[in-house]
Amino acid sequence: MADAQVKEPISYGFGKKVSLPYAEAVEATRVALKEQGFGVLTEIDIKQTMKEKRGIDFRPYIILGACNPPLAEKALGAELDIGLLLPCNVVIYAGANDEGGSVVKAMDPEVALGIVDNVELAKVALEAKSRLQKALQSLPG
Amino acid sequence: MADAQVKEPISYGFGKKVSLPYAEAVEATRVALKEQGFGVLTEIDIKQTMKEKRGIDFRPYIILGACNPPLAEKALGAELDIGLLLPCNVVIYAGANDEGGSVVKAMDPEVALGIVDNVELAKVALEAKSRLQKALQSLPG
Repeated sequence: MADAQVKEPISYGFGKKVSLPYAEAVEATRVALKEQGFGVLTEIDIKQTMKEKRGIDFRPYIILGACNPPLAEKALGAELDIGLLLPCNVVIYAGANDEGGSVVKAMDPEVALGIVDNVELAKVALEAKSRLQKALQSLPG
Repeated sequence: MADAQVKEPISYGFGKKVSLPYAEAVEATRVALKEQGFGVLTEIDIKQTMKEKRGIDFRPYIILGACNPPLAEKALGAELDIGLLLPCNVVIYAGANDEGGSVVKAMDPEVALGIVDNVELAKVALEAKSRLQKALQSLPG
Protein backbone atom coordinates (compact mmCIF):
# COMPACT_ATOMS: atom_id res chain seq x y z
CA MET A 1 0.00 0.00 0.00
CA ALA A 2 1.09 3.54 -0.57
CA ASP A 3 0.40 5.37 2.63
CA ALA A 4 -1.63 8.53 2.40
CA GLN A 5 -0.17 11.97 2.00
CA VAL A 6 0.09 14.28 4.97
CA LYS A 7 -3.10 16.30 5.19
CA GLU A 8 -2.94 19.68 6.79
CA PRO A 9 -4.63 21.05 8.68
CA ILE A 10 -6.63 18.34 10.36
CA SER A 11 -9.62 19.20 12.50
CA TYR A 12 -9.08 16.65 15.26
CA GLY A 13 -5.48 17.25 16.21
CA PHE A 14 -2.56 19.61 16.17
CA GLY A 15 1.17 19.28 15.81
CA LYS A 16 4.11 20.12 13.68
CA LYS A 17 7.00 18.98 11.58
CA VAL A 18 10.23 18.60 13.51
CA SER A 19 13.74 18.49 12.16
CA LEU A 20 14.69 15.37 14.12
CA PRO A 21 14.90 11.96 12.47
CA TYR A 22 12.13 9.56 13.50
CA ALA A 23 13.78 7.69 16.39
CA GLU A 24 15.02 10.91 17.96
CA ALA A 25 11.64 12.55 17.50
CA VAL A 26 9.98 9.68 19.36
CA GLU A 27 12.37 10.02 22.28
CA ALA A 28 12.12 13.81 22.38
CA THR A 29 8.32 13.51 22.40
CA ARG A 30 8.42 11.08 25.33
CA VAL A 31 10.56 13.55 27.30
CA ALA A 32 8.34 16.50 26.39
CA LEU A 33 5.19 14.61 27.43
CA LYS A 34 6.77 13.59 30.73
CA GLU A 35 7.62 17.22 31.46
CA GLN A 36 3.92 18.02 31.12
CA GLY A 37 2.87 15.20 33.44
CA PHE A 38 1.92 12.64 30.79
CA GLY A 39 3.02 9.04 31.12
CA VAL A 40 2.96 6.82 28.05
CA LEU A 41 0.60 3.95 28.90
CA THR A 42 0.27 2.37 25.47
CA GLU A 43 2.35 2.13 22.30
CA ILE A 44 1.45 0.84 18.87
CA ASP A 45 4.25 0.52 16.34
CA ILE A 46 2.25 0.89 13.14
CA LYS A 47 5.14 0.03 10.83
CA GLN A 48 5.79 -3.22 12.71
CA THR A 49 2.08 -4.08 13.06
CA MET A 50 1.40 -3.49 9.36
CA LYS A 51 4.38 -5.69 8.45
CA GLU A 52 3.33 -8.51 10.77
CA LYS A 53 -0.41 -8.44 10.21
CA ARG A 54 -0.70 -7.22 6.63
CA GLY A 55 2.72 -7.92 5.09
CA ILE A 56 3.11 -4.37 3.88
CA ASP A 57 5.81 -1.76 4.26
CA PHE A 58 4.69 1.36 6.05
CA ARG A 59 6.69 4.41 6.99
CA PRO A 60 8.05 4.53 10.57
CA TYR A 61 4.98 5.45 12.63
CA ILE A 62 4.12 5.07 16.30
CA ILE A 63 1.01 5.85 18.34
CA LEU A 64 1.75 6.78 21.96
CA GLY A 65 -1.15 6.72 24.42
CA ALA A 66 -0.42 9.60 26.81
CA CYS A 67 -2.12 9.83 30.18
CA ASN A 68 -1.90 12.53 32.82
CA PRO A 69 -3.10 10.65 35.93
CA PRO A 70 -4.66 13.61 37.81
CA LEU A 71 -6.58 14.65 34.69
CA ALA A 72 -7.62 11.06 33.99
CA GLU A 73 -8.91 10.78 37.56
CA LYS A 74 -10.97 13.94 37.11
CA ALA A 75 -12.32 12.76 33.76
CA LEU A 76 -13.32 9.32 35.04
CA GLY A 77 -14.86 10.92 38.11
CA ALA A 78 -16.98 13.12 35.87
CA GLU A 79 -18.03 10.34 33.50
CA LEU A 80 -17.32 6.66 33.92
CA ASP A 81 -17.53 5.85 30.21
CA ILE A 82 -14.89 8.41 29.26
CA GLY A 83 -12.38 5.55 29.18
CA LEU A 84 -13.69 5.06 25.66
CA LEU A 85 -11.80 8.25 24.71
CA LEU A 86 -8.67 7.72 26.80
CA PRO A 87 -5.70 7.98 26.61
CA CYS A 88 -4.75 11.02 24.51
CA ASN A 89 -3.05 9.76 21.39
CA VAL A 90 0.16 11.32 20.13
CA VAL A 91 1.48 10.09 16.79
CA ILE A 92 5.00 10.41 15.46
CA TYR A 93 5.87 9.43 11.92
CA ALA A 94 8.72 9.88 9.51
CA GLY A 95 8.34 12.69 6.98
CA ALA A 96 8.08 11.86 3.30
CA ASN A 97 11.36 10.73 1.74
CA ASP A 98 11.94 14.00 -0.03
CA GLU A 99 11.27 16.06 3.09
CA GLY A 100 13.16 14.30 5.90
CA GLY A 101 12.50 15.00 9.53
CA SER A 102 9.40 13.81 11.34
CA VAL A 103 5.86 14.81 12.15
CA VAL A 104 4.46 14.90 15.70
CA LYS A 105 0.73 15.38 16.26
CA ALA A 106 -1.59 15.09 19.24
CA MET A 107 -5.30 14.38 19.36
CA ASP A 108 -7.15 17.56 20.30
CA PRO A 109 -8.89 16.73 23.60
CA GLU A 110 -11.31 19.59 23.07
CA VAL A 111 -12.58 18.05 19.84
CA ALA A 112 -12.65 14.53 21.26
CA LEU A 113 -14.51 15.64 24.35
CA GLY A 114 -16.71 17.89 22.24
CA ILE A 115 -18.64 14.76 21.30
CA VAL A 116 -19.31 14.17 24.99
CA ASP A 117 -22.22 15.91 26.67
CA ASN A 118 -20.64 16.70 30.05
CA VAL A 119 -19.71 20.22 31.10
CA GLU A 120 -17.41 19.03 33.90
CA LEU A 121 -15.19 17.45 31.28
CA ALA A 122 -14.69 20.70 29.39
CA LYS A 123 -12.21 22.08 31.93
CA VAL A 124 -10.31 18.81 32.00
CA ALA A 125 -10.12 18.78 28.21
CA LEU A 126 -8.84 22.35 28.09
CA GLU A 127 -6.07 21.61 30.59
CA ALA A 128 -5.06 18.44 28.75
CA LYS A 129 -4.97 20.40 25.48
CA SER A 130 -2.86 23.17 27.01
CA ARG A 131 -0.33 20.65 28.34
CA LEU A 132 -0.15 18.75 25.05
CA GLN A 133 0.36 22.02 23.17
CA LYS A 134 3.21 22.98 25.50
CA ALA A 135 4.79 19.56 25.05
CA LEU A 136 4.71 19.80 21.27
CA GLN A 137 5.82 23.44 21.25
CA SER A 138 8.94 22.43 23.16
CA LEU A 139 10.11 20.17 20.34
CA PRO A 140 12.70 21.56 17.91
CA GLY A 141 10.95 22.83 14.78
CA MET B 1 -12.65 9.43 44.80
CA ALA B 2 -16.12 8.13 44.25
CA ASP B 3 -16.27 7.06 40.66
CA ALA B 4 -19.05 8.44 38.56
CA GLN B 5 -22.36 6.76 38.05
CA VAL B 6 -23.09 4.90 34.87
CA LYS B 7 -24.60 7.32 32.38
CA GLU B 8 -26.91 5.95 29.76
CA PRO B 9 -27.19 6.42 26.95
CA ILE B 10 -23.89 7.94 25.89
CA SER B 11 -23.52 9.55 22.50
CA TYR B 12 -20.03 8.31 21.68
CA GLY B 13 -20.35 4.60 22.30
CA PHE B 14 -22.64 1.64 22.65
CA GLY B 15 -22.73 -1.47 24.75
CA LYS B 16 -24.61 -3.33 27.40
CA LYS B 17 -24.71 -4.83 30.83
CA VAL B 18 -23.67 -8.45 30.94
CA SER B 19 -24.38 -10.98 33.64
CA LEU B 20 -20.76 -12.16 33.86
CA PRO B 21 -18.48 -11.12 36.70
CA TYR B 22 -15.72 -8.69 35.67
CA ALA B 23 -12.84 -11.12 34.94
CA GLU B 24 -15.08 -13.40 32.91
CA ALA B 25 -16.56 -10.46 31.05
CA VAL B 26 -13.07 -9.31 30.06
CA GLU B 27 -12.18 -12.73 28.70
CA ALA B 28 -15.51 -13.15 26.89
CA THR B 29 -15.02 -9.74 25.29
CA ARG B 30 -11.53 -10.69 24.08
CA VAL B 31 -12.95 -13.82 22.45
CA ALA B 32 -15.87 -11.92 20.90
CA LEU B 33 -13.55 -9.27 19.48
CA LYS B 34 -11.23 -11.91 18.04
CA GLU B 35 -14.17 -13.58 16.28
CA GLN B 36 -14.83 -10.27 14.54
CA GLY B 37 -11.21 -9.86 13.46
CA PHE B 38 -10.07 -7.48 16.19
CA GLY B 39 -6.80 -8.03 17.96
CA VAL B 40 -6.20 -6.32 21.29
CA LEU B 41 -3.12 -4.13 20.78
CA THR B 42 -3.25 -2.11 24.00
CA GLU B 43 -4.59 -2.57 27.52
CA ILE B 44 -4.94 -0.11 30.35
CA ASP B 45 -5.96 -1.46 33.74
CA ILE B 46 -7.62 1.63 35.19
CA LYS B 47 -8.05 0.19 38.69
CA GLN B 48 -4.35 -0.67 38.89
CA THR B 49 -3.22 2.61 37.30
CA MET B 50 -5.37 4.71 39.64
CA LYS B 51 -4.00 2.80 42.63
CA GLU B 52 -0.38 3.19 41.54
CA LYS B 53 -0.48 6.75 40.26
CA ARG B 54 -3.17 8.33 42.42
CA GLY B 55 -3.43 6.07 45.47
CA ILE B 56 -7.16 5.67 45.06
CA ASP B 57 -9.47 2.68 44.89
CA PHE B 58 -11.36 2.43 41.65
CA ARG B 59 -13.79 -0.24 40.50
CA PRO B 60 -12.35 -3.01 38.26
CA TYR B 61 -12.07 -1.31 34.86
CA ILE B 62 -10.01 -2.04 31.76
CA ILE B 63 -9.61 -0.29 28.42
CA LEU B 64 -8.85 -2.63 25.53
CA GLY B 65 -7.53 -1.09 22.33
CA ALA B 66 -9.04 -3.21 19.55
CA CYS B 67 -7.62 -3.18 16.04
CA ASN B 68 -8.84 -4.94 12.92
CA PRO B 69 -5.70 -4.89 10.75
CA PRO B 70 -7.39 -4.77 7.30
CA LEU B 71 -9.61 -1.90 8.44
CA ALA B 72 -6.68 -0.09 10.06
CA GLU B 73 -4.74 -0.43 6.80
CA LYS B 74 -7.65 1.08 4.86
CA ALA B 75 -8.04 3.91 7.39
CA LEU B 76 -4.34 4.79 7.40
CA GLY B 77 -4.29 4.59 3.61
CA ALA B 78 -7.14 7.09 3.45
CA GLU B 79 -5.67 9.48 6.02
CA LEU B 80 -2.24 9.25 7.58
CA ASP B 81 -3.17 11.15 10.74
CA ILE B 82 -6.05 8.80 11.58
CA GLY B 83 -3.69 7.05 14.00
CA LEU B 84 -4.78 9.81 16.39
CA LEU B 85 -8.14 8.02 16.62
CA LEU B 86 -6.89 4.41 16.63
CA PRO B 87 -7.38 1.82 18.01
CA CYS B 88 -11.10 1.39 18.78
CA ASN B 89 -11.48 1.40 22.54
CA VAL B 90 -13.62 -1.16 24.30
CA VAL B 91 -14.12 -0.72 28.04
CA ILE B 92 -15.19 -3.34 30.54
CA TYR B 93 -15.98 -2.43 34.13
CA ALA B 94 -17.64 -4.01 37.11
CA GLY B 95 -21.25 -3.06 37.72
CA ALA B 96 -22.17 -1.11 40.82
CA ASN B 97 -22.04 -3.17 44.03
CA ASP B 98 -25.79 -3.46 44.28
CA GLU B 99 -26.16 -4.53 40.67
CA GLY B 100 -23.44 -7.12 40.08
CA GLY B 101 -22.39 -8.18 36.62
CA SER B 102 -20.35 -6.02 34.31
CA VAL B 103 -20.67 -3.38 31.64
CA VAL B 104 -19.06 -3.66 28.20
CA LYS B 105 -19.03 -0.67 25.87
CA ALA B 106 -17.29 0.18 22.61
CA MET B 107 -16.39 3.53 21.15
CA ASP B 108 -18.68 4.28 18.20
CA PRO B 109 -16.34 4.56 15.19
CA GLU B 110 -18.99 6.47 13.29
CA VAL B 111 -19.01 9.22 15.91
CA ALA B 112 -15.24 9.25 16.28
CA LEU B 113 -14.71 9.40 12.55
CA GLY B 114 -17.54 11.90 12.24
CA ILE B 115 -15.09 14.52 13.44
CA VAL B 116 -12.86 13.64 10.51
CA ASP B 117 -13.47 15.24 7.13
CA ASN B 118 -12.74 12.27 4.87
CA VAL B 119 -15.44 10.44 2.95
CA GLU B 120 -13.24 7.40 2.30
CA LEU B 121 -13.15 6.77 6.04
CA ALA B 122 -16.93 6.61 6.34
CA LYS B 123 -17.14 3.10 4.88
CA VAL B 124 -14.31 1.90 7.10
CA ALA B 125 -16.02 3.37 10.16
CA LEU B 126 -19.31 1.70 9.30
CA GLU B 127 -17.69 -1.71 8.92
CA ALA B 128 -15.77 -1.32 12.17
CA LYS B 129 -18.99 -0.32 13.92
CA SER B 130 -20.89 -3.29 12.52
CA ARG B 131 -18.19 -5.71 13.68
CA LEU B 132 -18.00 -4.16 17.15
CA GLN B 133 -21.78 -4.34 17.46
CA LYS B 134 -21.75 -8.02 16.51
CA ALA B 135 -19.00 -8.70 19.04
CA LEU B 136 -20.92 -7.05 21.86
CA GLN B 137 -24.22 -8.60 20.82
CA SER B 138 -22.65 -12.05 21.16
CA LEU B 139 -21.98 -11.52 24.87
CA PRO B 140 -24.48 -13.00 27.33
CA GLY B 141 -26.92 -10.29 28.45
